[in-house]
Amino acid sequence: MTVTYTREVATCRGLSRFLTLLLRWRGSIYKLVYWELVFFLVIYYLLNIVYRCLLDKTGKEWFEDIVKYCNASTNYIPLSFVLGFYVSIVMARWWNQYLSIPFPDALAVYVSATIHGHDERGRVMRRTIMRYVCLCVTMLFTNISPKVKKRFPNLDHFVKAGLMEESEKRVIQELNQQFPAYSKHWLPLVWASSIITRARKEGRIRDDFAVKTILDEINKFRGKCGILITYDRISIPLVYTQVVTLAVYTYFLTALLGRQNVEGHGYVIDLYFPIFTLLQFFFYMGWLKVAETLINPFGDDDDDFELNWMVDRNLQISYLIVDEMHHEHPELIRDQYWD
Amino acid sequence: MTVTYTREVATCRGLSRFLTLLLRWRGSIYKLVYWELVFFLVIYYLLNIVYRCLLDKTGKEWFEDIVKYCNASTNYIPLSFVLGFYVSIVMARWWNQYLSIPFPDALAVYVSATIHGHDERGRVMRRTIMRYVCLCVTMLFTNISPKVKKRFPNLDHFVKAGLMEESEKRVIQELNQQFPAYSKHWLPLVWASSIITRARKEGRIRDDFAVKTILDEINKFRGKCGILITYDRISIPLVYTQVVTLAVYTYFLTALLGRQNVEGHGYVIDLYFPIFTLLQFFFYMGWLKVAETLINPFGDDDDDFELNWMVDRNLQISYLIVDEMHHEHPELIRDQYWD
Amino acid sequence: MTVTYTREVATCRGLSRFLTLLLRWRGSIYKLVYWELVFFLVIYYLLNIVYRCLLDKTGKEWFEDIVKYCNASTNYIPLSFVLGFYVSIVMARWWNQYLSIPFPDALAVYVSATIHGHDERGRVMRRTIMRYVCLCVTMLFTNISPKVKKRFPNLDHFVKAGLMEESEKRVIQELNQQFPAYSKHWLPLVWASSIITRARKEGRIRDDFAVKTILDEINKFRGKCGILITYDRISIPLVYTQVVTLAVYTYFLTALLGRQNVEGHGYVIDLYFPIFTLLQFFFYMGWLKVAETLINPFGDDDDDFELNWMVDRNLQISYLIVDEMHHEHPELIRDQYWD
Amino acid sequence: MTVTYTREVATCRGLSRFLTLLLRWRGSIYKLVYWELVFFLVIYYLLNIVYRCLLDKTGKEWFEDIVKYCNASTNYIPLSFVLGFYVSIVMARWWNQYLSIPFPDALAVYVSATIHGHDERGRVMRRTIMRYVCLCVTMLFTNISPKVKKRFPNLDHFVKAGLMEESEKRVIQELNQQFPAYSKHWLPLVWASSIITRARKEGRIRDDFAVKTILDEINKFRGKCGILITYDRISIPLVYTQVVTLAVYTYFLTALLGRQNVEGHGYVIDLYFPIFTLLQFFFYMGWLKVAETLINPFGDDDDDFELNWMVDRNLQISYLIVDEMHHEHPELIRDQYWD
Amino acid sequence: MTVTYTREVATCRGLSRFLTLLLRWRGSIYKLVYWELVFFLVIYYLLNIVYRCLLDKTGKEWFEDIVKYCNASTNYIPLSFVLGFYVSIVMARWWNQYLSIPFPDALAVYVSATIHGHDERGRVMRRTIMRYVCLCVTMLFTNISPKVKKRFPNLDHFVKAGLMEESEKRVIQELNQQFPAYSKHWLPLVWASSIITRARKEGRIRDDFAVKTILDEINKFRGKCGILITYDRISIPLVYTQVVTLAVYTYFLTALLGRQNVEGHGYVIDLYFPIFTLLQFFFYMGWLKVAETLINPFGDDDDDFELNWMVDRNLQISYLIVDEMHHEHPELIRDQYWD
Repeated sequence: MTVTYTREVATCRGLSRFLTLLLRWRGSIYKLVYWELVFFLVIYYLLNIVYRCLLDKTGKEWFEDIVKYCNASTNYIPLSFVLGFYVSIVMARWWNQYLSIPFPDALAVYVSATIHGHDERGRVMRRTIMRYVCLCVTMLFTNISPKVKKRFPNLDHFVKAGLMEESEKRVIQELNQQFPAYSKHWLPLVWASSIITRARKEGRIRDDFAVKTILDEINKFRGKCGILITYDRISIPLVYTQVVTLAVYTYFLTALLGRQNVEGHGYVIDLYFPIFTLLQFFFYMGWLKVAETLINPFGDDDDDFELNWMVDRNLQISYLIVDEMHHEHPELIRDQYWD
Repeated sequence: MTVTYTREVATCRGLSRFLTLLLRWRGSIYKLVYWELVFFLVIYYLLNIVYRCLLDKTGKEWFEDIVKYCNASTNYIPLSFVLGFYVSIVMARWWNQYLSIPFPDALAVYVSATIHGHDERGRVMRRTIMRYVCLCVTMLFTNISPKVKKRFPNLDHFVKAGLMEESEKRVIQELNQQFPAYSKHWLPLVWASSIITRARKEGRIRDDFAVKTILDEINKFRGKCGILITYDRISIPLVYTQVVTLAVYTYFLTALLGRQNVEGHGYVIDLYFPIFTLLQFFFYMGWLKVAETLINPFGDDDDDFELNWMVDRNLQISYLIVDEMHHEHPELIRDQYWD
Repeated sequence: MTVTYTREVATCRGLSRFLTLLLRWRGSIYKLVYWELVFFLVIYYLLNIVYRCLLDKTGKEWFEDIVKYCNASTNYIPLSFVLGFYVSIVMARWWNQYLSIPFPDALAVYVSATIHGHDERGRVMRRTIMRYVCLCVTMLFTNISPKVKKRFPNLDHFVKAGLMEESEKRVIQELNQQFPAYSKHWLPLVWASSIITRARKEGRIRDDFAVKTILDEINKFRGKCGILITYDRISIPLVYTQVVTLAVYTYFLTALLGRQNVEGHGYVIDLYFPIFTLLQFFFYMGWLKVAETLINPFGDDDDDFELNWMVDRNLQISYLIVDEMHHEHPELIRDQYWD
Repeated sequence: MTVTYTREVATCRGLSRFLTLLLRWRGSIYKLVYWELVFFLVIYYLLNIVYRCLLDKTGKEWFEDIVKYCNASTNYIPLSFVLGFYVSIVMARWWNQYLSIPFPDALAVYVSATIHGHDERGRVMRRTIMRYVCLCVTMLFTNISPKVKKRFPNLDHFVKAGLMEESEKRVIQELNQQFPAYSKHWLPLVWASSIITRARKEGRIRDDFAVKTILDEINKFRGKCGILITYDRISIPLVYTQVVTLAVYTYFLTALLGRQNVEGHGYVIDLYFPIFTLLQFFFYMGWLKVAETLINPFGDDDDDFELNWMVDRNLQISYLIVDEMHHEHPELIRDQYWD
Repeated sequence: MTVTYTREVATCRGLSRFLTLLLRWRGSIYKLVYWELVFFLVIYYLLNIVYRCLLDKTGKEWFEDIVKYCNASTNYIPLSFVLGFYVSIVMARWWNQYLSIPFPDALAVYVSATIHGHDERGRVMRRTIMRYVCLCVTMLFTNISPKVKKRFPNLDHFVKAGLMEESEKRVIQELNQQFPAYSKHWLPLVWASSIITRARKEGRIRDDFAVKTILDEINKFRGKCGILITYDRISIPLVYTQVVTLAVYTYFLTALLGRQNVEGHGYVIDLYFPIFTLLQFFFYMGWLKVAETLINPFGDDDDDFELNWMVDRNLQISYLIVDEMHHEHPELIRDQYWD
C-alpha cells in the first residue's frame, strides 16, 4: 500500500512539517537503507581496527597512502548528476504506470445507461460485460504483479473468485495451447464486444451511437492494459541501471577506505565516527533507493500500488453501478434554492 | 487563496519589478522561513557565546577543530541539485492538480442546450443534474482538503447547504455501511446519468447524440475527480521527501558549527553576523519551502487553492446557466458593421 | 509585439548568424538590463573612489578584508542552477499561454458550413454568434492584459467598438450586480449556444450532428479561456520568484564589494574596469530578465503578445468567413493535371 | 534535406558505431564550426606572435598578467549549464515543428471514401478539395521558409505550378488588398469546406456524419498550420538567444588571451598548439551550432526539412488517393491461411 | 529482444536487488564496453611500458610534463552534463518510438463487431482488411528495421508469407515505377478503406457511424506509421551526436596520458592498475552506450524491439479476432454473485 502523507503537510506555518515526516518508519529511508548501512559500518570499523591494531609502521604508511589516494578519487564520478537524471526517469515511469491502470467505472456507467431491460437477460448481459472487464484487468495484473499472481496462480482461482465461468476457462485453455506465446488478457474484452453487438441486435441498446460509445470505451480500456504490459516488458535499459548502481556502490567502496580516519588528516580531535560520510550514505543511497522502490510499482514494497484491493473494488463497484443502481436515482424534487 | 502578482510584473522597463515583489509579506519567503531563521540564529549565538565566554584554551582548540571539520564537510551533499529536481517534480504535480479540478460550466451549457422544456419537470431535471454534479465535486473536496472538510464535516452539512436532499443522504448512508472502504463521490454522477436516460425516454432530450455528449462530459468530469483522488492518495514517495529534508536540515546543522566565527579564519575583522550563511539559509530553506507549500495545494497555506470559494461558485453559476439563462439570448439584431 | 528573428537565422553557413542578433536593440538584453547596469557601475565606482581616495590605512585594510571575505562568499549560492530551473518553468508557462489563446477561426468555418440560409435572419444569426465569440475573448483579454483594459476600460467601449449591443450591456450589468465576484466572459458563449439551439429549431441547422459539432467547438473555446484565466490567477508561487530574485541581487550586491580592485589582488596591472564581472552581470541579470519578460506575456514588453491586434483580426476574419465567404467557392473546373 | 544516420548505428556490437559518424562531413560539426575555428586560430597565433616577437620585457609582463587574469576568469560563466537548458528548449521546438507539419493523406482517404460518384463532377470535386488543401499548405510554407518562397515568389507561380486557378488568384488578390495584415493561407480551406457542403446538398456525400468527419479533419489541418505560423512568429525570446551567444563568444574571446602559452605556465614543454582549448572550442561551439541549426528548421541548412519535396509529394499522393485509387481495391479472394 | 528485469526488482527489502542485476551479461554494460575497454588498457600499458623501459631521463621528464598537462586538462569539458542532456533526449525518443508502434488489435475488434455476415464474402472481407493492415505495418517495418528487411528483402517474400496476393504485388510494382520516391506502406490502408466503403454499400456494415469508427481507427493507425517513419528519417541532428562522441572519446584519449602513473604523483605505493580511471571509463562509456543502444531501437541490439515477433503476432491475433471469435462469446449465464 502506498504511503500517504499529504494530509500532514497541508500547511507550512511554524516549523517545517517535513521534519515530522522524518520520524516515520513505514516507507522511510531508514527502513530502506539500514541493511546497507549496517554492512557499511561493519566493514568500515573492521578496516579501522586492522589499521589501528594490526598494522606495523610500513603497513600503516601504505594504508595511509591508499586512504589518501581513494579520498582524492571519490570525486571522479558525478554521482548527483547521474542519480538526478535516472531518478527523474524512474519517477516519470512510475507515475505514468499508475495513470495507466484501467478502472471499469466509466464503462459501468455507459453500460448501465445504454443497455436497457430490467428482465433477467438484461441483467445478465450488463453483469457479464462488467465481469469480463474485471476479468481482463485481473488477468493483466497477474502478468505484471507477483502479489496478484500469488492470489491467482492459475485459471481455477479465477473461477473460484467468481471472475470466470468454467466454460470460459476451457476456451482460454484451448487458446493457450494454440497460441502459447501471447498474453490472453484481451480475450474477455472481445467477448464483451460480442455481447454488445448481440444486445444491439436484440434491441436492448437503442441506437448505433451507444454501441460506438461502449466499443470506444472498451478500446480505451484495452489501450491502457497494453500500456501496462509495455511498461512491464520494456524495462529501463539494463545498462543504465547498471551504470547507476555501479556508480553508487563503487563510490561507497572507495569511501570505505578514503574516509578512514588515519593520521595526518589534519585535525586534533580523533574522528571515531564518520558522521558526514554517513550523511552522504543516507543521501545517495536513499536517492538510489527511491529509484529501486519505484522501478517496479507492482511489487511488495511499502510504496507499491494495492492491486489486490483494486481487484475486489472493481467487481463490487461494477456490479453496484450496472445492477443495483441501474436506472435508479432519487426522486426528482425542487431544491432549496427554487424560487 | 493563491497569491497573484502577474499584474505587477506586466512590464520590465526600468529597474526590475521583481524587486518590488521582495517587499511583500503574504505568501513570502520571510513569512515561511522566519521561525526556522529564529531557531537557527538563537542556536548559532548560543554556540558562539559558549565558545567566546565559557571554553578554556583546550576547549577552544577542540571547538575550532570541529568548526574546521564541519566547514570542510558542508559540500559533501549537492544540495542545489537534489532541491532542483525535487522542486520541479513538486511544481509539476501542483500545477497538474490545479488543472485537474473539475468545473461544471461545460456540463451546464450542454444540459441547458439539450434538455428542453420550460415546465417545472424540465427545470427540476436540469437543476437536479447540476446539483448532483456540484455535490460530487464538493464531496470530493471534503476528501482531499481539510478546509472543505471543516465546512462539511458530515452529510448533514451537505443537506443544510442545499447540495443534498434528505432522501439522497439516506441512500449514501446505506451504501456507506455496505461498502465502507470506497469513496462515494461518484454516486451523484451515476444518478445524473440516470436522470439523463430518463429525460431521453420522456423526449426532453431530442436525440441520442445529445445523450452521448452529456454522458461523455460527465465521464470526463468523473475522470478529473479520479485524478484528484489519485494525487491525494499517491504522494511523492516518502523516501524522496525524507532525503531532501534530511539533506537541507543536516546542511544547516553542520553550518551551525562550521560557519562559527572562530580564530584563525583569516580575516582581520570580527564577523559577528554570519551574513552569507543567512543568505544561504534564505536561499535553500526558501527553496525547500516552495516544495512544502506546493506539496499539498488544498491545505491552509497562502498559496493554496480556494476550494470553498469554488463550492459556492459552482452551484451559483450552474443554476444561472441551466435555469435563468436557459435558452435565453438577447434579441437578434443587425450589428454595427452590417452593410 | 513579439520580436521575430527566425528568418535571419535560417541558415548557419559561414560565421554564426547569432552574432548579428547581438546588434539588435528591440527586445534585446541591453535594453532590458541597462538601468541595472548603470546603477551597478555608479555604486561600484563610488565605492572604488571611497577606497582609493578617502580611506586611511586602517580603513583600507578593513576594506580589503571585506573585499576578500565577500569575494570568497560569492559562490555560496548556485545561481546558475536555480536560474536554469526557474527560467525553464517560466518559459514553459509562457509558451503554453500562447497556445491557450483561443482563435475563432475554427468556429467560424463550422458556423458558415452548418447554419444555412442567405436571408437576413440567417446572416444575423451567423454574424451574431461570431460577434459573441469575439466579445467573449475580448472581455477575457481585458481581464488579463492591462493593454487591452486600457482600450476597453468599461462596457461602453465594447458597445462603441461594435462588439456589444446596448441590450446586451444591460444584461451584463445586471448580472454584475447579482454576482460581482465572478468573471462574466463566458456569458456571450452561453448566448451563442442558445442561438444555435434556436437555429436548429428553425431548421437552419439541418442535423443534430452539426449542433453537437458547434457546441463542442464552443466548449473547447471556453476551455481555452479558462486556462488563460488560470494562468493569470495562479502565478508561479511568490516564494519561488523571491528566492530567485534575492539570489541574483544579493549576488551582485556581494560582487559590488568582492570584485573591487584592491591591493593584493595579485596582478601587476591595475584593473580599473571590472570587465568579467560585467560579463557575469550581463549573463545572470539577462537570464533573470528572460524570466521577467516572459512571466506576464500580456503586458507591455517588447516580447509580449499583441492582443489588441488579435481583437481586430478576430472580428474581421470571423465576419469574412461566415458572411462574405458563406458557401462561396471558386467555380469547379478541371485542374491542370486532369488526364 | 535532413541528415539520416540511424541505419548506421542499428547495432552497437564491437567498437562504437558512433566513431564512424565522426568521419561524416554533411551536417557535421566540422562543416559548421570551421569558419569560427579558422578565425579563432588566426587571432590566437597573431597574439602569440605579438607576445613572442614584438613585446619587450615590460610588455611581456603585462601580457602575462592579462593572460593570468583572463585564465582565472573563464570560469565566471557556467557555459555548460546555460547551453544545456537552451539547446533542450530549441530541440523540443524543432521536433514539435516537424510534428506540426500537416500532411493531406488522412484527408485524402476520407474524401475518397465519402464523396461518391465516378462522373466528372465527382472527380472534379475530390480533386479540387485536395488541390485546395495542398495550396493551403504550400502558401503556408512560403510564409515560413525562404526556400519555398524562392520557388513561389508570387501568386503567379502557384498558378503555373497547377496549385491555383486564375479565378482563385483574383479572389486572393482582392482580399489581399482588403485585409493586407493577415495571412490568407486558410482561405483555400474555407473553399474546401464550401465544396463539401455543396457535395452534401447534391447527395454525393451520403450522410451528415461524413460531412462532420471531413470538416473535423480540415479543422485539424488548419490547426496544424496555425501552430507552424505560431512557431514562426513567436521566436524564442531574443534576450535568451543573446545571453547564450554572448556567453559562448565572450568565453572564447577570453580564451584567446587566457590560454596563450606564456612563460610561467609551469610546464617544461612549449605548447605551440592549444589542443585542449580547441577541444573545448569544438565542444561548446558545436553545442551552440546545434541550437543554431535547429532554431529555424525551414531554412537552408543540411539538417533542415525538405519542404519543396513535400509540396510535390502532397499533390501527387493526394491525386493518387482521391482519383486513381478512388474506391479501387484488389479483388477480394481467400487468403493463404483460409481453412 | 528487450532485456526485462522488473520482476527481479519487485521488492527492495534487505540488500539492494540492483546488486544482482550487476551479474547479468545479456544487455549489460560489460558486454557493451568490453571492446573499448580492451583497447584502452592495451594502449595504456603500451604507453606505460614505453615510459618505464624505453625513455631516458629527458624523455621521462617530457613524458611527465605531458601527463601533468593532460591531467590538468581533463576537466575542460563537462562530460556529465552533456551526457545527461543527450541521453535523456535519446531515451525520450526511444520510448516514444515504442509507443508509436501500431497494433491492429483495436481495428480487429471494430471490424469484427461492425462487419456482419457469416458467409464467405463476409469472412473474406474481414480477413482481407486485417491482412492489409498487417501488410501495411510489415512494409513499414522493412523500411525502418534491418532485421525485418532481411526477412522480407523484396515483395515476393510478402507473397510467400501470405501477407500479399500476386495481384496486389503487381499494383505495388506499378506504383513503385510511377512514384519511386515515396514509401508505399499506406497503400494497403487505402485498399482497406475502399473495402469498408464497399461493405457499407452491400449492407454488411449497418450504419454510417460504424464506417466512421473504422475509418478513424485506420487513420490513427496510419498516423502512427507516419510517426515511426518520421523518427526513422529525422535523426537527432548529427552534430549533437558528434559533439557528445567527440567529448567522451577525447576525454579518454586525454586520460590515456593524463592518468599514467609517473613519478611525482605523490603516492608511496606504485599504482600499476588505474582502478579509478577504469571506473570512470565504465561510467562515462556506459552512459554513452545507453545512448548508442537506444538511438536505433529497431536494430540488432539486445535491447531492441522484437519486430519479427510482432509481424507474426499481428496476423495471428487479427485472424483470431475477426474470424474465429467473430460474434462468439461464452453462453450468458448468471454469475456467482447473483442474488
